[in-house]
Amino acid sequence: MTINKIMDKPGCWLGDGGPLSDIVISSRIRLARNVAGYPFLSRATHAQRRDLAAFLRERLESSSFRPDFTYIDVDQLDELGCQVLVERHLVSRQLVEAKGARGVSVSESQNTVVMVNEEDHLRMHVVRAGMQLDEIWAAIDKLDDSIETEVDYAFHPRYGYLTACPTNVGTGIRVSVMLHLPALKLTGEIERVLRAAKDMNLAVRGLFGEGTEATGDFFQVSNQVTLGRAEKEIVSEFRSTIVPRIVEYERMARQALLDEKSRALDDRIFRSYGTLRHARTISSEETLLHLSHIRLGVHIGRIKDVPVKVLNELFLETQPAHLQKAHGGKLTGEQRSAARADLIRRKLGCA
Amino acid sequence: MTINKIMDKPGCWLGDGGPLSDIVISSRIRLARNVAGYPFLSRATHAQRRDLAAFLRERLESSSFRPDFTYIDVDQLDELGCQVLVERHLVSRQLVEAKGARGVSVSESQNTVVMVNEEDHLRMHVVRAGMQLDEIWAAIDKLDDSIETEVDYAFHPRYGYLTACPTNVGTGIRVSVMLHLPALKLTGEIERVLRAAKDMNLAVRGLFGEGTEATGDFFQVSNQVTLGRAEKEIVSEFRSTIVPRIVEYERMARQALLDEKSRALDDRIFRSYGTLRHARTISSEETLLHLSHIRLGVHIGRIKDVPVKVLNELFLETQPAHLQKAHGGKLTGEQRSAARADLIRRKLGCA
Repeated sequence: MTINKIMDKPGCWLGDGGPLSDIVISSRIRLARNVAGYPFLSRATHAQRRDLAAFLRERLESSSFRPDFTYIDVDQLDELGCQVLVERHLVSRQLVEAKGARGVSVSESQNTVVMVNEEDHLRMHVVRAGMQLDEIWAAIDKLDDSIETEVDYAFHPRYGYLTACPTNVGTGIRVSVMLHLPALKLTGEIERVLRAAKDMNLAVRGLFGEGTEATGDFFQVSNQVTLGRAEKEIVSEFRSTIVPRIVEYERMARQALLDEKSRALDDRIFRSYGTLRHARTISSEETLLHLSHIRLGVHIGRIKDVPVKVLNELFLETQPAHLQKAHGGKLTGEQRSAARADLIRRKLGCA
Repeated sequence: MTINKIMDKPGCWLGDGGPLSDIVISSRIRLARNVAGYPFLSRATHAQRRDLAAFLRERLESSSFRPDFTYIDVDQLDELGCQVLVERHLVSRQLVEAKGARGVSVSESQNTVVMVNEEDHLRMHVVRAGMQLDEIWAAIDKLDDSIETEVDYAFHPRYGYLTACPTNVGTGIRVSVMLHLPALKLTGEIERVLRAAKDMNLAVRGLFGEGTEATGDFFQVSNQVTLGRAEKEIVSEFRSTIVPRIVEYERMARQALLDEKSRALDDRIFRSYGTLRHARTISSEETLLHLSHIRLGVHIGRIKDVPVKVLNELFLETQPAHLQKAHGGKLTGEQRSAARADLIRRKLGCA
């Protein structure tokens, strides 16, 4: 699968449908694994890193368990291609910014990914639209087992799976949900919710994970503790406690806005709609903010003529690398802002 | 003519048509006169002020020269009525904020007005759409003569017409043009133009004259010197030098924007259009700004589906007192902002 083929597909992190999808954009589980007999990457030589990548690539490509996977050699990929992978949430920024032999194996549906030589030797994740952590756990557990039949994982009988960073030792699991919380943001209650999440040892990040700010009302909530708890326990806590609670807060905030501030809410939603339908130049940050308001408007029934599908496509396609790939080459910031505004108007049926 | 009747008419200061009307909103000449034998108002007792108002009202109402004029007793008018007169530019804020006997005589077309007991005993003005100073001079000269047949003006053979403020002594004339200069504002060249205007002894004011800021790219340019020059000379300088020069600068700025920054210009114009078509609550200041951009868009041919007539109506009808009069009573600021947004969407055909 080439980058162009990836771009032709809708992509998975910004899902449409799935349980609780008015608020839970997508859910995701990631596992960190290392291969026994190889040093952690921070201590590996270039040659060791190259050998390891070659070894893992060969295993991943030859596996009969994953016939629909394609391996992309990130070290050979140009800057725009790398950015497309990041914008798709297929790989981390860390992977593309690293040096040396590294890659990623992506399933046809783009919902299953195995990164090679990121922080750990292997980082695999499964993502689905809406709240589907149980299904995701079943899928990634199977993926993990299948890889384990071919690769000898670094495992300690007392500490569990060994990882480059101690915060991942044990299960090596990170469960995360991407939440759309515009009403909590508008009412200002988001601060209280985020504090409560931190008290529960949860990390709250932005759209692009570690080191990124929450933009356009999107929040990625994930566990921080990986040691001393079973994977299923962590998943179950997300499914039965954490996510339902935040979803309930957001729903209450939406209802309160509808009941008490419906005009101010409509004003916010429809000004965003009007701006995207008419702007001739627009930044990605501003686009994200307006798309967020429109998404809220669609889910509370105030905007009826924009399919969620179109919104999701816009979230993806208005990103800088996607815009440039679609254009067929590099664009300046000014050109991107113009191309972005044109694309938006076209997709909203007003150009 | 009652306030309600005044509201039913389109109003004159925001004209449509007339020469140079893409830039010159309206032109206006005002004359200041006082009645011999009465003290200036700053020195008049309440009784003298009342006697004078009664005398002038009787003269103005009985005159066969002005059969279509109606006298409004401002002292008897409620606050909303007073505000409507100000928003129509029929009277000055000073007149409505003053105390005691005072009034205004308004022609059916609302383009000819005589204020009684403002700063001077009589302040008369004629206004027309676009650049029509010669026609206006002919009309106001005739009006002035007709009043002089019935009233004895305070006149000094050396100083000319005597006025309460020395800056008006002599001819008592103020020639002014309301200009729409959005391109000069956008390019930043407006500062240079305003400095040049001040060097020519011109005053530059906002939409509502003295003491008001230029809002939404509208500038009122008027003469400051009234003594030692003939009225016709002042009018002629406006017609042949001042206005054509500023109009040319604004046209050049529009062309430069179209040539070099057409996308940024379109962005400005269409974002304003999108905002007015979709906002659910909006202040009068923000409305004015967007209407200004849309007016530019219409005049340079970028917006084709908004008639200038609708824009002019919106300029008038979105003002606070007009909104409340149309509603039939007082509204809070929040209610006005909502009513304003609803009116705008209705008139732009999107609600």
